[in-house]
Amino acid sequence: MVAEVLVTGGAGFVGSHTVLVLLQNGFKVVVLDNLVNAVSEGPKPEALVRVEKLTKKSVEFHEADLSDSKALDDIFSSHNFECVIHFAALKAVGESCQLPLAYYRNNVAGTLSLLEAMKKHKVHRLVFSSSATVYGDPQYLPLDETHPTGQGCTNPYGRTKFFIEEMLVDLCKAEQQWQVVSLRYFNPVGAHPSGQIGEDPLGIPNNLMPYVSQVAIGKRSELQIFGDDYDTVDGTGVRDYIHIMDLADGHVSALERLLGSDPLQGFNAINLGTGKGNSVLEVVAAFEKASNKKLKYKIVARRAGDVATSFADPKLAKELLGWTAKKDILDMCKDAWNWQVQNPNGFRSSDKN
Amino acid sequence: MVAEVLVTGGAGFVGSHTVLVLLQNGFKVVVLDNLVNAVSEGPKPEALVRVEKLTKKSVEFHEADLSDSKALDDIFSSHNFECVIHFAALKAVGESCQLPLAYYRNNVAGTLSLLEAMKKHKVHRLVFSSSATVYGDPQYLPLDETHPTGQGCTNPYGRTKFFIEEMLVDLCKAEQQWQVVSLRYFNPVGAHPSGQIGEDPLGIPNNLMPYVSQVAIGKRSELQIFGDDYDTVDGTGVRDYIHIMDLADGHVSALERLLGSDPLQGFNAINLGTGKGNSVLEVVAAFEKASNKKLKYKIVARRAGDVATSFADPKLAKELLGWTAKKDILDMCKDAWNWQVQNPNGFRSSDKN
Repeated sequence: MVAEVLVTGGAGFVGSHTVLVLLQNGFKVVVLDNLVNAVSEGPKPEALVRVEKLTKKSVEFHEADLSDSKALDDIFSSHNFECVIHFAALKAVGESCQLPLAYYRNNVAGTLSLLEAMKKHKVHRLVFSSSATVYGDPQYLPLDETHPTGQGCTNPYGRTKFFIEEMLVDLCKAEQQWQVVSLRYFNPVGAHPSGQIGEDPLGIPNNLMPYVSQVAIGKRSELQIFGDDYDTVDGTGVRDYIHIMDLADGHVSALERLLGSDPLQGFNAINLGTGKGNSVLEVVAAFEKASNKKLKYKIVARRAGDVATSFADPKLAKELLGWTAKKDILDMCKDAWNWQVQNPNGFRSSDKN
Repeated sequence: MVAEVLVTGGAGFVGSHTVLVLLQNGFKVVVLDNLVNAVSEGPKPEALVRVEKLTKKSVEFHEADLSDSKALDDIFSSHNFECVIHFAALKAVGESCQLPLAYYRNNVAGTLSLLEAMKKHKVHRLVFSSSATVYGDPQYLPLDETHPTGQGCTNPYGRTKFFIEEMLVDLCKAEQQWQVVSLRYFNPVGAHPSGQIGEDPLGIPNNLMPYVSQVAIGKRSELQIFGDDYDTVDGTGVRDYIHIMDLADGHVSALERLLGSDPLQGFNAINLGTGKGNSVLEVVAAFEKASNKKLKYKIVARRAGDVATSFADPKLAKELLGWTAKKDILDMCKDAWNWQVQNPNGFRSSDKN
């Protein structure tokens, strides 16, 4: 029998790439998304339309918010989900400082509604989209899963991920039947190699790679680099960038482990990272190589809350999920650029930025 | 003009005593309570009926849950609240380990709904019912407000209080107009000196004093003391017990400070404790004196998550609110006993325990 999986936030960046790999691996996929971070010019979000074209398979789509318990209840009632992969969330760090209530409402209360529906419908397997931001300022490197969490989270976005993990820990302690994998992403970038789906930020990008892409294509005049006086190889911040296809594979590996013959039990936090860091200037150099363009940049002041260096210890993912990242920073830049060139306006049919 | 105050959870133990003192201080009080932790045998919860008798003033009462945004909206629309005092919460530590989702739903999501309603109706003053449990295992004593929070919280109840404080901190950073006092209670006990209102736990009491009262009156056969091998004066756990009337006064002091000519701004965490601890055996001795009864007790194993000693540094409350606790452990026991003797079944007209 084909296993059916509910993917919340499946129209977003990580969600859509994961849906693609799920379909390629024979899963039946139902997506729930409120389209806050996705473009839809027809009955289905454009990212999923393209996923369907790429895979020649179809995805059931529901436009709904997690706070809509009636919609959730209907979706759960009419399917037999083996597992939920939960991406749906607001995700802009800066915005979360301006609109903390919206972040707690969407991310924390939204997840609560999802968990309540899962409990009601006896679906106890969950892959949760967490973030390395739960580690706060690293006390040591590489960051492994036993590193303290929730201390020195500098923004509400990060706190929502931390709070949700804590709720999941408590839930798994109280009810033995839960099987939860919380995937702590480092810095997902890149795009599907086809260039048909990729990261499509609304407005000014918050993250480095889409910003770099938009500078390369002439949409933004120059890149701002926040500080070159960190204690790193060249003074700019070092992050563990991970190719979105590697990340998507990580979700499918987690899912397969939960559905397999020796499933993980209870709450399991697992890093998804490459284990190596690249500085901002290294990313710029790789992007210049991938795009064959010279990128204009300017060093500006550090940004509050940014840490010098962050990278993963990826051993546990290998041990528990049999997963390792395969692609390097040049692959990430090539695929990001390929997506950008083919889709100068992202998923929109014209430039509305 | 008379200042109007919304009190959520105003039919509960701390809530009802605070409502009484608010009325005595000339405030107009509107109570919202879902009656999960309160007895009501008529249109108004019995605690509030008695508060009205004691004060000869009336309280407007609404039976509603914080998740009912329509009810909240109606209440805010039809009043001009100067401030909200927010007690409404589930509060049983042990139960929170069994039912974590219910605790996160009621306490965290409930508070979010309240904050959203306050924001919508431009009410930006809040006194929040927090707890010393946010400090976790004390790193030093006495516990002052700069002690780390959220580390080593051993139960979901404590985590809900910590999460709410973090949300309030974020909210106050994002929006300058908020004025929030988060009162971190130590161990509230006792009752109004009239014996007309007091603590009325449903089922087997979770806390020491009501348990002791029920042993003294013959409702429970003996007291279980969880461990006598702690590093304390007599081996039993030491806590900072605070008389409920002192605690109620603390809330009114906080409210008056927020409404005064030099109001506190932003987020302010303030301890409400006496600054001295009493061991379980000291409480038993004081209760025996107050009740003139011999109490049977048994030493049993330590309880997971209990710390040896916890007591407040109460200086900040004195400095910011001009408040100090006045009553001692004997007062607390006398008033608890007086309440118990006059109300063997609490607020119920017959014993349903």
